[in-house]
Amino acid sequence: MQITKRANRKLTIADIPHVGPGTPAGEWFRRYWVVVGTLRDLYDIPQAVRVLGEDLVLFRDPDGRLGLIGQSCPHRGTSLEYGDIEDGGIRCPYHGWLFDVNGRCLEMPAEPKDSKFCGKVKHLAYPVRELGGLIFAYMGPDQEHPPLLPNYAPLLERGGQRHIEPVRIADYNWFNFFENSADPAHVCILHRHAGYGQQSWGNHFFSYKEMPHVEFVEMDYGMKVVMTKPGPKPSTEFIDEMSLALPSIVQVGDTEFVHAKMDAAALMQEGSRCEHWMFVTPNDDDHFMLFTADNYFGPVENFFERLKEMRQKEMPIQEVKPYDKRKYMPYKGNIRQEDIMTQGTQGLLGEREEQLGVSDRGVIKFRRIVLDAIATALRGGRPKGLVAKDSAAKPYRLDTQVGLRPIG
Amino acid sequence: MQITKRANRKLTIADIPHVGPGTPAGEWFRRYWVVVGTLRDLYDIPQAVRVLGEDLVLFRDPDGRLGLIGQSCPHRGTSLEYGDIEDGGIRCPYHGWLFDVNGRCLEMPAEPKDSKFCGKVKHLAYPVRELGGLIFAYMGPDQEHPPLLPNYAPLLERGGQRHIEPVRIADYNWFNFFENSADPAHVCILHRHAGYGQQSWGNHFFSYKEMPHVEFVEMDYGMKVVMTKPGPKPSTEFIDEMSLALPSIVQVGDTEFVHAKMDAAALMQEGSRCEHWMFVTPNDDDHFMLFTADNYFGPVENFFERLKEMRQKEMPIQEVKPYDKRKYMPYKGNIRQEDIMTQGTQGLLGEREEQLGVSDRGVIKFRRIVLDAIATALRGGRPKGLVAKDSAAKPYRLDTQVGLRPIG
Amino acid sequence: MQITKRANRKLTIADIPHVGPGTPAGEWFRRYWVVVGTLRDLYDIPQAVRVLGEDLVLFRDPDGRLGLIGQSCPHRGTSLEYGDIEDGGIRCPYHGWLFDVNGRCLEMPAEPKDSKFCGKVKHLAYPVRELGGLIFAYMGPDQEHPPLLPNYAPLLERGGQRHIEPVRIADYNWFNFFENSADPAHVCILHRHAGYGQQSWGNHFFSYKEMPHVEFVEMDYGMKVVMTKPGPKPSTEFIDEMSLALPSIVQVGDTEFVHAKMDAAALMQEGSRCEHWMFVTPNDDDHFMLFTADNYFGPVENFFERLKEMRQKEMPIQEVKPYDKRKYMPYKGNIRQEDIMTQGTQGLLGEREEQLGVSDRGVIKFRRIVLDAIATALRGGRPKGLVAKDSAAKPYRLDTQVGLRPIG
Repeated sequence: MQITKRANRKLTIADIPHVGPGTPAGEWFRRYWVVVGTLRDLYDIPQAVRVLGEDLVLFRDPDGRLGLIGQSCPHRGTSLEYGDIEDGGIRCPYHGWLFDVNGRCLEMPAEPKDSKFCGKVKHLAYPVRELGGLIFAYMGPDQEHPPLLPNYAPLLERGGQRHIEPVRIADYNWFNFFENSADPAHVCILHRHAGYGQQSWGNHFFSYKEMPHVEFVEMDYGMKVVMTKPGPKPSTEFIDEMSLALPSIVQVGDTEFVHAKMDAAALMQEGSRCEHWMFVTPNDDDHFMLFTADNYFGPVENFFERLKEMRQKEMPIQEVKPYDKRKYMPYKGNIRQEDIMTQGTQGLLGEREEQLGVSDRGVIKFRRIVLDAIATALRGGRPKGLVAKDSAAKPYRLDTQVGLRPIG
Repeated sequence: MQITKRANRKLTIADIPHVGPGTPAGEWFRRYWVVVGTLRDLYDIPQAVRVLGEDLVLFRDPDGRLGLIGQSCPHRGTSLEYGDIEDGGIRCPYHGWLFDVNGRCLEMPAEPKDSKFCGKVKHLAYPVRELGGLIFAYMGPDQEHPPLLPNYAPLLERGGQRHIEPVRIADYNWFNFFENSADPAHVCILHRHAGYGQQSWGNHFFSYKEMPHVEFVEMDYGMKVVMTKPGPKPSTEFIDEMSLALPSIVQVGDTEFVHAKMDAAALMQEGSRCEHWMFVTPNDDDHFMLFTADNYFGPVENFFERLKEMRQKEMPIQEVKPYDKRKYMPYKGNIRQEDIMTQGTQGLLGEREEQLGVSDRGVIKFRRIVLDAIATALRGGRPKGLVAKDSAAKPYRLDTQVGLRPIG
Repeated sequence: MQITKRANRKLTIADIPHVGPGTPAGEWFRRYWVVVGTLRDLYDIPQAVRVLGEDLVLFRDPDGRLGLIGQSCPHRGTSLEYGDIEDGGIRCPYHGWLFDVNGRCLEMPAEPKDSKFCGKVKHLAYPVRELGGLIFAYMGPDQEHPPLLPNYAPLLERGGQRHIEPVRIADYNWFNFFENSADPAHVCILHRHAGYGQQSWGNHFFSYKEMPHVEFVEMDYGMKVVMTKPGPKPSTEFIDEMSLALPSIVQVGDTEFVHAKMDAAALMQEGSRCEHWMFVTPNDDDHFMLFTADNYFGPVENFFERLKEMRQKEMPIQEVKPYDKRKYMPYKGNIRQEDIMTQGTQGLLGEREEQLGVSDRGVIKFRRIVLDAIATALRGGRPKGLVAKDSAAKPYRLDTQVGLRPIG
């Protein structure tokens, strides 16, 4: 009912950043599986995690089952972050209540032996699935019948080199990050300092002076940004794409060529390809987690070790003078720090004032797509990016292209 | 009138944690003398202290009189925490107004010599008494006729070894701490890690597998928790008691045997006894002070030095792995840290969700006793724990038993 | 309209501390030029500055023009604190919009070459003027025709030694500082610890026991505090004055003699004089900046170097005992720290309780003068301290006297 009422008032872009329980964007977000952790960062202790404004605990029981349950013990509130992982599940330190990954209470040591109370307690628990090293949870309605977890291609495909980065944490709104990929102009401008090597694809393709031609294409999963430039022959063009899949996945197609600084043309002719997916999960309205999954197909051995070495060298090139005490300094020359500075100072969409131009038509279109998806979810429909049951078995791809292609 | 109105609405457990001026529990709390400091921690400088949500300054004037007055100078607000203690009282640094321990203004150096203004200013001041090293204040109505300060036995009795600990400060609600003693099950469960020595009373009496039998007895002063286990002979039983006296005193009877790790049975036969009282004083709804007074009767010399040495060795036994960044780690193996972790993460009574069982009947009963006392105080009656005038001269005892007794 | 409504309700002293946009005191304050920075502290990077509750960026473009513009880029909100200062103005790092010191947008690199959008965007920008090393801004109505910047004498006069101190920042309300100068009693009392040398003017004139006679004179610019004491001959008197000019300027007349600790009588006979002006600019209701401009006329060479050396020696004389953890300790013996302690703990005027006496008639009168000025400004009139057009060309003086004068 609450949701119905909300659906009746007009949604605006000011609704998009807010994802807590009961908010329009929060209800919409809960229709999808969201990434809540990685296998590589989950140890043998409970992991407190805030997701969409809810305080939860992620853990793996001794049988390897994953659980995501309410952080506060339903008995008298002590944090299960300090629980003991034991056979069967996680045990509250205060009075020893034992919960399994489904939130069922298995033991209450202080209750009478013949008590039936234990069977009546059901703790908050969300379905959890692992796929290719990422841990997904479903926090929406009808948890007995969650949607199928999409077969995200880079998490499933074999034959390439796969890499999951340690989670990155940011202290600003998730949508500032997400919609940044609907805005290709910033790549040519903000990232002009990033020091792409002479021969790199990025430096070649993005240019402050000669920006690529851009189109924004609405997709089943969300939106694709298609950037093109004239190719070496009149019958060819260079292409670089970025995909934004709802609720919060970004694929950018140029990772290898930007960061590994190799001979882009040569590699593309060899058929090299690196899928670079980023899954954004809001902790709340002011923080988000960023999970990155890469899959590389090509001839370079130990590609991700090489990439890591290159990134470590990619320090900001900016001189910081002794009197310069600005918080985000230095940032120029490191793409990630450039993004954090700009997005971290933007404030909240819908609260900040904005004046948008032609070059903002990507973010304008994308916000409209997101608002449509929220409205669809609130009406009970299937929002963009949520895989239909009959196609759930298929690989979920964002066919983001990078390279040279014939025209027409 | 405000209070009358409040008394007319139904009190709930959500009222208990809130102790600011004008709140139901705050008005109730102000009917008692509360501990605001210790002689050992009070130096020759003013001591800022927040009590029940009021910002005050505690000091001792050159004649040795204790004062507890409003922190903000009534003239133009400067903090009397920076006042100079001088003959007569405390002098505001800004314009030199001098206040005595009763809040009377004695001097106003900048006013005309013949001014009568000084005599008209009465600063907020509460009656203060010292007893056995603890400093008590009365912040309730009718301050000309405060209730008699109870003759708390461990602060008065001679012949034993007495010890006042330095104040401990906590950053969570006072009632989480207080009602924890109405919950004996946690001793067997949470504190199972506390590493009681093989021969200790605690280890012998409290057991995760074989919990003691428990009864909760309403008392004049509040409630007593009576725990028993079968004794060595059929005609005997072991007993261990905890007392909760309103508004906020706890006596646990097993201190010596838990912490000093001596041969409990032998010592009890010798007649050893250690009274361990804890006085809880809320600073506000999120912080409290814990004042501890012990009185030991028995053959061990320098008992409290020995106890201190033992406590220093009582480090948490918990291994903390390199990836474990949890705030309260390590806690297992140190009773106080175990309590801080569980109580500090509980949240506020009445705001957290709870599901209570048979083993929670102690806290359920105790909350009812506290609510009755609050209601009594708001009606103008004498709440539990407030000593009647005619029995005020008697020692105030919480006859908390520990040991072996014949079955009756 | 909003302002009219506010003007209709009764102004009280509780309005004075609040200077945000739309508040009565905030609207009044915006009728004057306010100091927002100093030339000596402005480097070749943008300087974020909060003024009267507004987040702004101060910068100097390559042509030397000063700008004070909104911190948040009007395009999509990124902070211009990280902008690049370039020919023409300051460029937003995100999409390269270039703004000049007047807020005009000069370039939008990502917009189509033939776009007219650039010409339509006008960013928030306030008029800025430099005078004698201080940077002033006008943030009030009718910015095309701001009031004339007063010819503040110490910033203009030639022949003396001029000195601008680095800005000082305080974390309490600006009016606690400002009205402190309407209260001469505190000099005799609070600052009795400041260790004036034996021969100093301060020590001679101000005395806890024999306070000077005081009068408070309403002036065109605000108020003057006139303190007198009998002179060496019956026909003479010593005089020391402090001036408070609206909205927030203080001149105290005794700087040289207090701090430089020279033979006051001798120097005054020589005609030495040191104008010591302090300009207070609220960042918001809890913080302010203090800009100090001195102008010395007299025989001492390198007067301000000597003064600086003397100040560095002027350490608090107060012993701080090991158990003394009070925040502002030590403060006694350093005038500035004495002021910070007293004013920083006062709380907000209108929220704190006060009991005022005869010796507070200066602050009482001054608050009334300020309230009258606020009311005048809200009615659209010319409040005290705002220079009339026809006298704008004249030097703006606060003729604060210090020394010996004939009586009558």
